[in-house]
Amino acid sequence: MTDHLAADQLKLLLLNKVNSKTKPISSLGRLEELAVQIGMIQNTLSPKFNKPAMIVFAGDHGAAKNSGISLYPQEVTHQMVLNFLSGGAAINVFAKQNGFSLQVVDAGVDHNFQSAEGLVNRKINFGTKDYCLEKAMSINELNLAMQYGTKLVDDLSQQGCNVIGFGEMGIGNTSSAALLMHCFTQLPLSDCIGRGTGLDNEGVKKKQEILEKALMLHLPLSGWEDILSTFAGFEIAMMFGAMLAAAKNNMIILLDGFIASAAYLAAFTKNPEVKKFVIACHQSDENGHKYLLNFLNLKPLLNLQMRLGEGTGAVLAYPLIQAAVNFLNEMNSFEGAGVASVELKVES
Amino acid sequence: MTDHLAADQLKLLLLNKVNSKTKPISSLGRLEELAVQIGMIQNTLSPKFNKPAMIVFAGDHGAAKNSGISLYPQEVTHQMVLNFLSGGAAINVFAKQNGFSLQVVDAGVDHNFQSAEGLVNRKINFGTKDYCLEKAMSINELNLAMQYGTKLVDDLSQQGCNVIGFGEMGIGNTSSAALLMHCFTQLPLSDCIGRGTGLDNEGVKKKQEILEKALMLHLPLSGWEDILSTFAGFEIAMMFGAMLAAAKNNMIILLDGFIASAAYLAAFTKNPEVKKFVIACHQSDENGHKYLLNFLNLKPLLNLQMRLGEGTGAVLAYPLIQAAVNFLNEMNSFEGAGVASVELKVES
Repeated sequence: MTDHLAADQLKLLLLNKVNSKTKPISSLGRLEELAVQIGMIQNTLSPKFNKPAMIVFAGDHGAAKNSGISLYPQEVTHQMVLNFLSGGAAINVFAKQNGFSLQVVDAGVDHNFQSAEGLVNRKINFGTKDYCLEKAMSINELNLAMQYGTKLVDDLSQQGCNVIGFGEMGIGNTSSAALLMHCFTQLPLSDCIGRGTGLDNEGVKKKQEILEKALMLHLPLSGWEDILSTFAGFEIAMMFGAMLAAAKNNMIILLDGFIASAAYLAAFTKNPEVKKFVIACHQSDENGHKYLLNFLNLKPLLNLQMRLGEGTGAVLAYPLIQAAVNFLNEMNSFEGAGVASVELKVES
Repeated sequence: MTDHLAADQLKLLLLNKVNSKTKPISSLGRLEELAVQIGMIQNTLSPKFNKPAMIVFAGDHGAAKNSGISLYPQEVTHQMVLNFLSGGAAINVFAKQNGFSLQVVDAGVDHNFQSAEGLVNRKINFGTKDYCLEKAMSINELNLAMQYGTKLVDDLSQQGCNVIGFGEMGIGNTSSAALLMHCFTQLPLSDCIGRGTGLDNEGVKKKQEILEKALMLHLPLSGWEDILSTFAGFEIAMMFGAMLAAAKNNMIILLDGFIASAAYLAAFTKNPEVKKFVIACHQSDENGHKYLLNFLNLKPLLNLQMRLGEGTGAVLAYPLIQAAVNFLNEMNSFEGAGVASVELKVES
């Protein structure tokens, strides 16, 4: 096989390989689509994952100092970072189970961390500014966050990593993601807002009032730079840069939940080519996520009523994605196994 | 902790343990329900899986000799058994990936196998009789199949296995499962019938005509013995016995697709207690499965548009179930991690 088959030819060869396996046509459903997608990304009939990696970006949001944005106090962001470093959070458990390396990145937490093993210091600032009063970050800060995200992913790619997920921690970041979603998609703000870590109906109503005011302060906004610098968190901006870098490096991107999808939405707006590389891993229970996935025309692999972030959905879906690669590489063909096959006319 | 806590007390302790973890209340969704279910089955706050096992039962159906029951010729059953033994089928790949032992059981294939490593000979007969003409099996055959299924599971339990999935191979067995589903649930036959390995619309119509005639020949039927002996395959009857034995042995049962769910339906009819032990692993694309899961009030973990059988859905869902056990055992509590928690009023 030559190194660079024409895409159409490769796709046909991949489909033929999938259909030659000892199973009824299409009977592995979504796994078959994944096998073809991954083969196309890696430009091979025998794809392989190397060094799966999870980067969790943490950042604080100035707006979270307003009561009504989140149920939890802002210091939970840095407390959870320490929890990640101690190995006791959900993402630690699931990353360990599924063989992911884990980097925890201080993208802009409002806390002075001691240097610690596993903590990557890329602090842009001690939290963003409060978008209820001013833009969350300067264009310089946005660019720096993007550069840091890019470099982190470039380094992993150089070490041989070809499949990567991104998680986040940041009290108040469902509000930031909701505002980004609204600005990029023009979907009603109420569709973009949800309970976050567990607001009740009254809490959601208050959150909406706060975010409507913030929108009125800043609209009109134009283009991804303006939107991100106004409403993003540093963890989201860094993830945005990281996703674009992952696509540039031909890596498979494991898309997590609502916040990660808001970062992806910005990346997709800047460069629609990124879509080729993304696998939507799960649908979060956070209200806006189903609408956002639908807008992006992405079908999630899992729907387990989770709403935790941290990259948990991405890592949990990985064994299914590995299974797609494994069946493509390891299953017998009808011919090889001496099993009678059937020429099927598959109906659409 | 005493060996036998009252169930209510144990459930409360499990819920408290789940809610003490460093995450918003309920944010791990279905995984939290699984953790509680598994803790209840194992009567412990720290459940653990041992020696996960998959048994694939294979059997032929006399009715499959009628053209119109299946797209594939009957000899594919024994060819696929040989494929399982060579390690090249989907279930081999996924069982290896997820650490399952795999037994392939000849429950009643219409073929004389050489003895082979990995093949367990429990042949009841060379296929069932054609239910379009007579009952598929005698009561003696049904009882023998149940006994064999029971013994296989008892042996695994004695070896320390506490989590088990069941798969099947049998050309024509979506027809058998559809008839069983109709008889046990009284749902319309058309809801129970699907494309199987890939029939087109006309094929499904013909399949329905054949099955309607078979029903008219045998109705009325009363009770699980009568229904199973009339329409089951040996692989289904043996799985039915195996599921009841798994529940008796306090094992977690990983429920696969449409055929396995028909066996479970019979087991649940005989002993509703079996439900405590079952985890619905995936929803098959075979038409009847969504209605059957709904009838059984079971929520599938996965919906990947698969329709392959062999136990593939059960084995693929296992990492999620393992993740439920892992977070319960390994995550930090708020208190231990020094993370601020919030008393939540969760709305229903």
